[in-house]
Amino acid sequence: MTLKNFYNTDAKDRDVAVSSRIRLARNIEGYAFGKRLSNEKAAEITEKAKQIYTNTPAMSEEYEFLSMDDMSENDAAVFAEQHVISPEFAQSRMPRALLVKKDGTASVMVNEEDHLRIQTMTAGFELKQTYENADKLDDLFEGNVKYAFSENLGYITHCPTNLGTGLRASVMVHIPCLVATGAAGKFINAASKLGIAVRGLYGEGSEAEGCFFQLSNQITMGVSEGEAIEKLESVVSGIIDAERKTREAMIKNASVQLKDRVFRSYGILKYAYSMATKEFMQRISDVRLGIAAGLITDITLADVDYLIISTHPAAIQKTSSNILTAQERDVKRAELCRVAFGERRSEG
Amino acid sequence: MTLKNFYNTDAKDRDVAVSSRIRLARNIEGYAFGKRLSNEKAAEITEKAKQIYTNTPAMSEEYEFLSMDDMSENDAAVFAEQHVISPEFAQSRMPRALLVKKDGTASVMVNEEDHLRIQTMTAGFELKQTYENADKLDDLFEGNVKYAFSENLGYITHCPTNLGTGLRASVMVHIPCLVATGAAGKFINAASKLGIAVRGLYGEGSEAEGCFFQLSNQITMGVSEGEAIEKLESVVSGIIDAERKTREAMIKNASVQLKDRVFRSYGILKYAYSMATKEFMQRISDVRLGIAAGLITDITLADVDYLIISTHPAAIQKTSSNILTAQERDVKRAELCRVAFGERRSEG
Repeated sequence: MTLKNFYNTDAKDRDVAVSSRIRLARNIEGYAFGKRLSNEKAAEITEKAKQIYTNTPAMSEEYEFLSMDDMSENDAAVFAEQHVISPEFAQSRMPRALLVKKDGTASVMVNEEDHLRIQTMTAGFELKQTYENADKLDDLFEGNVKYAFSENLGYITHCPTNLGTGLRASVMVHIPCLVATGAAGKFINAASKLGIAVRGLYGEGSEAEGCFFQLSNQITMGVSEGEAIEKLESVVSGIIDAERKTREAMIKNASVQLKDRVFRSYGILKYAYSMATKEFMQRISDVRLGIAAGLITDITLADVDYLIISTHPAAIQKTSSNILTAQERDVKRAELCRVAFGERRSEG
Repeated sequence: MTLKNFYNTDAKDRDVAVSSRIRLARNIEGYAFGKRLSNEKAAEITEKAKQIYTNTPAMSEEYEFLSMDDMSENDAAVFAEQHVISPEFAQSRMPRALLVKKDGTASVMVNEEDHLRIQTMTAGFELKQTYENADKLDDLFEGNVKYAFSENLGYITHCPTNLGTGLRASVMVHIPCLVATGAAGKFINAASKLGIAVRGLYGEGSEAEGCFFQLSNQITMGVSEGEAIEKLESVVSGIIDAERKTREAMIKNASVQLKDRVFRSYGILKYAYSMATKEFMQRISDVRLGIAAGLITDITLADVDYLIISTHPAAIQKTSSNILTAQERDVKRAELCRVAFGERRSEG
């Protein structure tokens, strides 16, 4: 998997919106859910998914079919860091399989909380296109299995919060200036009143590190997929506008303070020899802001977003054959930063 | 004045010894000291000094004769930052004059605490040569005026602590590793038991900033100039050896921590947009250590020592026609650092 998505330098509204994701929860009629699903039946489901994969030429070419039982814990953790799978799926002990597109922009978790979790991801603010990509994958599966569906409830899901469309649309935003002025809290409150959940980098229960927040629809019943996406789009658009206006004001009124903060972080990421995750997220957030503000021009937003994904603990562990301590990972993380900031990519 | 001294990249032992200075306190027979010296008599002394300057071709060519009454407060403060004059001399209201060599390596304060204060300075650890330079200046004045001298006491000085040789020899050392290990305190105690005073960057009462310390002889009676200098040399040599050994051990045992500290400071000095003096001294101390340890190669110790002198408050004020606030000086200081670290001088 190459995560080509993160190299897309033309992504729409990337100055604030890091990525857009769609997840569809689907289940197959005649199979139980969760703990009531036997390992035998779960294996039947992964086998069905494998057959669909094998019998669909476009899918066999573009995707990989991976048995989670054969996957190392660390490789699973890397997929979770990349948002290709959920942290829960990485740790589950049920027979599971993962279909993953080679460019990292689509995946299907087989036997996560639901039998099928179809996911698509695009860099920037691209909910409609991302939904269309998910919809095509959905059609492909629907042509091969009978989904659990009720005229009244819509798609039947394990957790009642997903009943209906089974859709979770989300956008990751980077709003350092709204955080700096304290306005972020106001937007988060307003969003949740509109049925939009706001979470940290890794979903429920995770902290917002480096001023990255994930916004997603909470309502899946009584609204169409289109309506849910439009509402999220409208809230995110408002936040993008507000962040941009605040940035402009900060650049105008406090340009030395802003430049000092941005370039100190740039200098540290470029030269440090040890870098813990928490500090990294703060510094890279500053640099991301600096690029968006036009202050930093020798590294792109795409480079930065890829660096974030490549410097999470499991991704760093994957580069070594020895088990690394946290300190050793900090040293390796600093090395990856020095390379990224020293290489002066030409794409920018 | 060009401060050529600080550009001398061949200075001996500069990895630890920043500079060596000699000061000779001399007084002219028949004139009172301190507050008992009338302004009229003080003006006579400056006039004598001026005549010596004018009538000595070598001096008229290589030196400037400056009346302190015509000098702006800030220009006087710059000379004090450069150790060309004492802070007290900069602020005194008596008729004073300054003879200063155009390369900054020698000066004579007329009507400081003593009638004549002859000073010479060399980059690195060069006490003997520096003393010889002072001795020549001393001979020149002695050939033109009659010094206050007693067979029993030696040179008569205003303050009894200078009686005898009137000599103050000093070496500025940079000992970040002895400070880091806590051994610096031990060396300072040992030095003072041997009659060597240890002070901060700007003499008595000043703090040791950025691990820079000034060592000087305290005893001027009962020892010859040569003996006083040799004792100081021996103490400084011991400190240089100890600092070097500690550096080697730190490079060997804690190379990542050391590199991280050194290169973070390097990155910050290279990119920051605001830099207060206190932080500057800490960061430049790290960088100085990094150069001495061979980690940083694109800037020299000479560059760093010159940067320290050029970024003190009065030196920064001198670059502007407006009165700068402390914040504005911090911005200008950061700019000077960015230029120094960006220019990649070829001398190194």
